[in-house]
Amino acid sequence: EVVPTCERYAVRRLPFGRLADGDVAFFERLMPGRVLTGEEVEPYNVDWLKSVRGCSQLVLKPQTTAEVSQVLRYCHERNLAVNPQGGNTGLVGGSVPVFDEIILSTALMNQIISFDKVSGILVCQAGCVLERLNEYLEEQGFIMPLDLGAKGSCHIGGNVATNAGGLRLLRYGSLRGTVLGLEVVLADGSALDCLTSLRKDNTGYDLKQLFIGSEGTLGVITAVSILCPQKPKAVNLAFLGCQSFAKVLETFTTCRAMLGEILSAYEFMDEKCMELVERHLKLSCPVTDSPFYVLIETSGSNSTHDEQKLNNFLEQAMASGLVADGTVATDDKKMKVLWSLRERITEALTHDGYVYKYDISLPVGKLYDLVTDTRARLGQNAKNVVGYGHLGDGNLHLNITAESYSHSLLDAIEPFVYEWTARCNGSISAEHGLGFKKKQFIQYSKPSEAVVLMQQFKAMLDPKGILNPYKTLPSTP
Amino acid sequence: EVVPTCERYAVRRLPFGRLADGDVAFFERLMPGRVLTGEEVEPYNVDWLKSVRGCSQLVLKPQTTAEVSQVLRYCHERNLAVNPQGGNTGLVGGSVPVFDEIILSTALMNQIISFDKVSGILVCQAGCVLERLNEYLEEQGFIMPLDLGAKGSCHIGGNVATNAGGLRLLRYGSLRGTVLGLEVVLADGSALDCLTSLRKDNTGYDLKQLFIGSEGTLGVITAVSILCPQKPKAVNLAFLGCQSFAKVLETFTTCRAMLGEILSAYEFMDEKCMELVERHLKLSCPVTDSPFYVLIETSGSNSTHDEQKLNNFLEQAMASGLVADGTVATDDKKMKVLWSLRERITEALTHDGYVYKYDISLPVGKLYDLVTDTRARLGQNAKNVVGYGHLGDGNLHLNITAESYSHSLLDAIEPFVYEWTARCNGSISAEHGLGFKKKQFIQYSKPSEAVVLMQQFKAMLDPKGILNPYKTLPSTP
Repeated sequence: EVVPTCERYAVRRLPFGRLADGDVAFFERLMPGRVLTGEEVEPYNVDWLKSVRGCSQLVLKPQTTAEVSQVLRYCHERNLAVNPQGGNTGLVGGSVPVFDEIILSTALMNQIISFDKVSGILVCQAGCVLERLNEYLEEQGFIMPLDLGAKGSCHIGGNVATNAGGLRLLRYGSLRGTVLGLEVVLADGSALDCLTSLRKDNTGYDLKQLFIGSEGTLGVITAVSILCPQKPKAVNLAFLGCQSFAKVLETFTTCRAMLGEILSAYEFMDEKCMELVERHLKLSCPVTDSPFYVLIETSGSNSTHDEQKLNNFLEQAMASGLVADGTVATDDKKMKVLWSLRERITEALTHDGYVYKYDISLPVGKLYDLVTDTRARLGQNAKNVVGYGHLGDGNLHLNITAESYSHSLLDAIEPFVYEWTARCNGSISAEHGLGFKKKQFIQYSKPSEAVVLMQQFKAMLDPKGILNPYKTLPSTP
Repeated sequence: EVVPTCERYAVRRLPFGRLADGDVAFFERLMPGRVLTGEEVEPYNVDWLKSVRGCSQLVLKPQTTAEVSQVLRYCHERNLAVNPQGGNTGLVGGSVPVFDEIILSTALMNQIISFDKVSGILVCQAGCVLERLNEYLEEQGFIMPLDLGAKGSCHIGGNVATNAGGLRLLRYGSLRGTVLGLEVVLADGSALDCLTSLRKDNTGYDLKQLFIGSEGTLGVITAVSILCPQKPKAVNLAFLGCQSFAKVLETFTTCRAMLGEILSAYEFMDEKCMELVERHLKLSCPVTDSPFYVLIETSGSNSTHDEQKLNNFLEQAMASGLVADGTVATDDKKMKVLWSLRERITEALTHDGYVYKYDISLPVGKLYDLVTDTRARLGQNAKNVVGYGHLGDGNLHLNITAESYSHSLLDAIEPFVYEWTARCNGSISAEHGLGFKKKQFIQYSKPSEAVVLMQQFKAMLDPKGILNPYKTLPSTP
């Protein structure tokens, strides 16, 4: 049983209105059969990690932007707080309520609006599941520009709201470049239509950027227009073992130079990660006995050329002793197996106990020092301290497991990890966002003038503060 | 002699303070020898196209962010309007004053702050000239992620302030993805330090995005952190002639499929463009007798592979009759000559007379119809109506020349071009911005709710409206 967030963290409820019978009746009339109450609400109150729990009594499942508008107009008037929720796969407690916020789920907003094969531009509702979109696109010779472990559940609206990074960022760039347009409903219920499908548009300020990564605190994203790359004709995967982190780094610079434009992912994980994946998920790793493993993906338009490039690189990496052992995959099935060793680390960690998760950007050379230092600091107090992540983007996932949640262990980790990161001018949240769990630590990565400005934007766009309260920005003292 | 903007367009001066002797004395003390008055100010008052002219009496040339802060704090207090100016290469009248705004030039803020070869991240002051930065990076095996005809004069700060697109956007994406951090001085003189050098950072709202493309109306960009791609080992250029625009389009889809990840530019121009470049600049085009020309660039890491891909494509394009004639270049000198045929069209147009410039985003299939329709509409009233641009991005540069400026010709073009564009859900400014000349037409590409929100942002960040007034947003009636 997950302890309610408001108890564990001793948060004070803000003076929002309380849900009354008349409110539920209003919503029932607005969207009959798509209003959940009672026991049905429970799964929406707890996050995927089972680390935070809200006590909402109501889930609303709109199908259209007009319905979202009506819901927010009503809540704004009644001063009822709202928690927008996509696939509920967030890792920082941003996707579930803290108290009794009404949960506004995008689950039924799952229609593809249009796809243009000439431009590669997809327009769809916010509740489309990432993996479904990718499958749809693959049939037309395209792919989504982002991919992440949670793809089977996460919604594209949630991806945009959290500015999700993931496994393809190295190649296709961030959502700030690939998202071309958004439709957003503001706190007062008014709809903002910036859902253009143009690669370039410099007419005035780019408002949609403010909503990308705002974690549902400035508006509810209802539809997305996104530029999709062509499906690569050839994909290759190499899973390699390295004898030190220094060799992981050198392997990266070597492969970046030799694979160039076809490099599409460079992931790393330490041996602890592999141990957990093998122990808890019974996966078996084809490469063993290395303290570090890297996963290199190439995507290109000519399989002969790509294989030549990859082979040249592998020969050099082996000959120069950068890589101790490895395996290569070109068929879909074997690639899926190799990718799952990386993608399912998060899942394996949840089986290991309570997980303290950190998602850090650092200068790439210092990336693993944080893991080593944290491991030394915590000693026997932690069950496991593991490091993995998107090395090519300078993004480390540092995870610490323990049998159960403990205040004292948390105190040993925080602010240690944040101070360490700040000393290197890193980011305390590379891609997960701040949500509920990290919002008080924003000052480790942002100057106070910036935070003040963010608060002004919030006050301007959501003067009553009803949208995803207690999240992203620090509570004012 | 260029007619002053305020006369030609009958604009009313807003009630800003007027420059007094005491003000000039203050600035002289602040930055001795870097305050221009009298005749020296003239070149800063006129845009590169010689189409707009301000009547500023003062140019300030700060060297540091602290100086920019002090200037703006003073101007804010005295209610003096300020026109931030980079390389003054803008095409919509955004870079010169309309009345007597003080010109704040970034010309002396031209220091490179740092470059990290592992990550490819460059940090520099806003006044660095784009071409100088690219030369600096090339020595280290990198390039700037953007390139444009004005590279020899334009400043990186101006590029960011206008969200410049240019010739490499197809490959390296927009500045919204490549700019990692900004330092900005706000209207009241306070500095906002968002100058991080991290590929990923999801801590709070991405404030820097608001300043990208805000044309100096929300803050003055003083420094930029930008992600730079590796210098490609192999670059090839093909200059081809096509017998119809339909063939230009089909050539594009074919080459996108066959060149894939090495395609780095796909530009097109009509025969009128080539005539003007030959007539006014005495360049000679190696391919002739086609109504359309395309310039295809590949950039990759393996010259053998790239040449194979390009040759395969060219064989197919020739065999299927998509391309009538063409030439290929791999050596730097010949490539420069071919690129100049495309890059110097803007310059050739200025020699042809007064130029009415339109920079339009459209669904790629309709791109050239706007040129044909405009040509038919204007008939003998225009000297030349030409179309060229970044076809791969759906971006048309429509240019109309006449012996001199005429109100009646302008009335025949506008709002015709804007209405045509709006009917196709296009953008009336793909990459040039709105500046002074296009600001009243924003509603053709943005809904009124969006414009209202932009005005709220402006009012919040610059309550006195002193930053680049009369630009970007429509004057409230």
